[in-house]
Amino acid sequence: MNSTHCLLGRVLCVVTGASRGLGRCIATQFSSVVGPSSRFILTGRDASLLAGVKEEIVKSASGVEVDCLVLDQSQVTCDDVLRKHLAEKANPKDFDKAVIVHNSGSLGDITRNAKDFDNMAEVQSYFDVNLASMIALNGVFLKWCGQEAKPLRTVINITSISALQPYKTWSLYCVGKVARNMYFRCLALEEPRVRVLNYAPGPLDTDMQAKIREECGDAEMKKTFIEMHRDGKLVDPAASVKVLMRLLKFDSYESGIHIDYFDEA
Amino acid sequence: MNSTHCLLGRVLCVVTGASRGLGRCIATQFSSVVGPSSRFILTGRDASLLAGVKEEIVKSASGVEVDCLVLDQSQVTCDDVLRKHLAEKANPKDFDKAVIVHNSGSLGDITRNAKDFDNMAEVQSYFDVNLASMIALNGVFLKWCGQEAKPLRTVINITSISALQPYKTWSLYCVGKVARNMYFRCLALEEPRVRVLNYAPGPLDTDMQAKIREECGDAEMKKTFIEMHRDGKLVDPAASVKVLMRLLKFDSYESGIHIDYFDEA
Repeated sequence: MNSTHCLLGRVLCVVTGASRGLGRCIATQFSSVVGPSSRFILTGRDASLLAGVKEEIVKSASGVEVDCLVLDQSQVTCDDVLRKHLAEKANPKDFDKAVIVHNSGSLGDITRNAKDFDNMAEVQSYFDVNLASMIALNGVFLKWCGQEAKPLRTVINITSISALQPYKTWSLYCVGKVARNMYFRCLALEEPRVRVLNYAPGPLDTDMQAKIREECGDAEMKKTFIEMHRDGKLVDPAASVKVLMRLLKFDSYESGIHIDYFDEA
Repeated sequence: MNSTHCLLGRVLCVVTGASRGLGRCIATQFSSVVGPSSRFILTGRDASLLAGVKEEIVKSASGVEVDCLVLDQSQVTCDDVLRKHLAEKANPKDFDKAVIVHNSGSLGDITRNAKDFDNMAEVQSYFDVNLASMIALNGVFLKWCGQEAKPLRTVINITSISALQPYKTWSLYCVGKVARNMYFRCLALEEPRVRVLNYAPGPLDTDMQAKIREECGDAEMKKTFIEMHRDGKLVDPAASVKVLMRLLKFDSYESGIHIDYFDEA
């Protein structure tokens, strides 16, 4: 198994926020190409939703093990949950590739302007879920992988155009996304043997977009998203995952780079 | 008092991390140009160091009130500390200008690579001090200011070139700085009547640089900083504050922009 395509061979793949939307789509599509004896670890807060994803995978991808790991990224102990699970369930020697997809994330309150966040506990909680936990989980994953040639390590951050430019009433989201990107740019710089991709999947037709259409505090932004939805311009998560998988297949992206769905579609 | 120079007239000025280094220098230099009946609120963790700064200001700047506010940005209640102090000690109607300088910050652990941060509590703690508390304190400050034409509001974020590019073993610092910048870019976009400046003061000859020379985990970075120190290439904080004050005086910067000392010196 010489290919550098991170989804070929025996793959250990962690997908955070795998119970719904893009995360679910990543889990099901990735599992359809990996080799036998691969293992997926799907994290999320809702055990029954995760069980549904597992069922879908097990039906279609034979020889792939799926673990549903209930993990709440607002909890400061979430690193231990993944650490313990990996130690008990998987040995890095058994895999050709190891992949983690940091998909889990929340919009935060998009009804208010940046100046209106005057409660530290609220702000802290947002960055716990969207930043601190992700960094710690990534550390746990890479420590488990070890430093050997095998498994080949790939880290994917689901990001957004909001990491590149500010948007009205989206301050927490923009801050979280740019912060995640920078963490992965540092990681890529430090670890030439880890493949790192910041992938912005486009404006997806998921629950998150429904929330935006309802709650966005900026009238102009809200109108734009309502019109995109009405005109069928939101991106199908399955189409976006296809683009992501093409990037992984050709494996020619510069490690640490930010790539948008619309650059590649 | 028609000038838009944010340090002219009766000024309410909050400086975080004012007990040492750049923060101390900002407090003393800013206080030397403001008008009578101005008030400085200096925050920090060390009451006796703050008292020393107060003494220095009171000696040289007559008619300026100075409050030393012991405030620990690792504590989730720090927003309440500033909120209560502002409510009790200052009325926005009494000031022409209101300025906050978010100077407080920590390097974090610069001995380790990004992948080595696998403890969520540690990562959370870094972003509490350097991000969440700052956002909340800024919200408290702007709420206190109100939305009237007076006081004119100016918000200054002390940032770094690390907000623009990754550096080895500096992941937490880079992530915190880019995150802060994005928060202020969002703020500038949303609040055209608030002046917002992200100012990178250059590599300052302060305690933080001494820590870098001792602890930096990347040999090449460490060597560079040791050489800069040896060759007298570190920036004098007083010189950097002069450049900052010139930017404030001409008040022609684009709100939300990142300006580096070396662009202006």
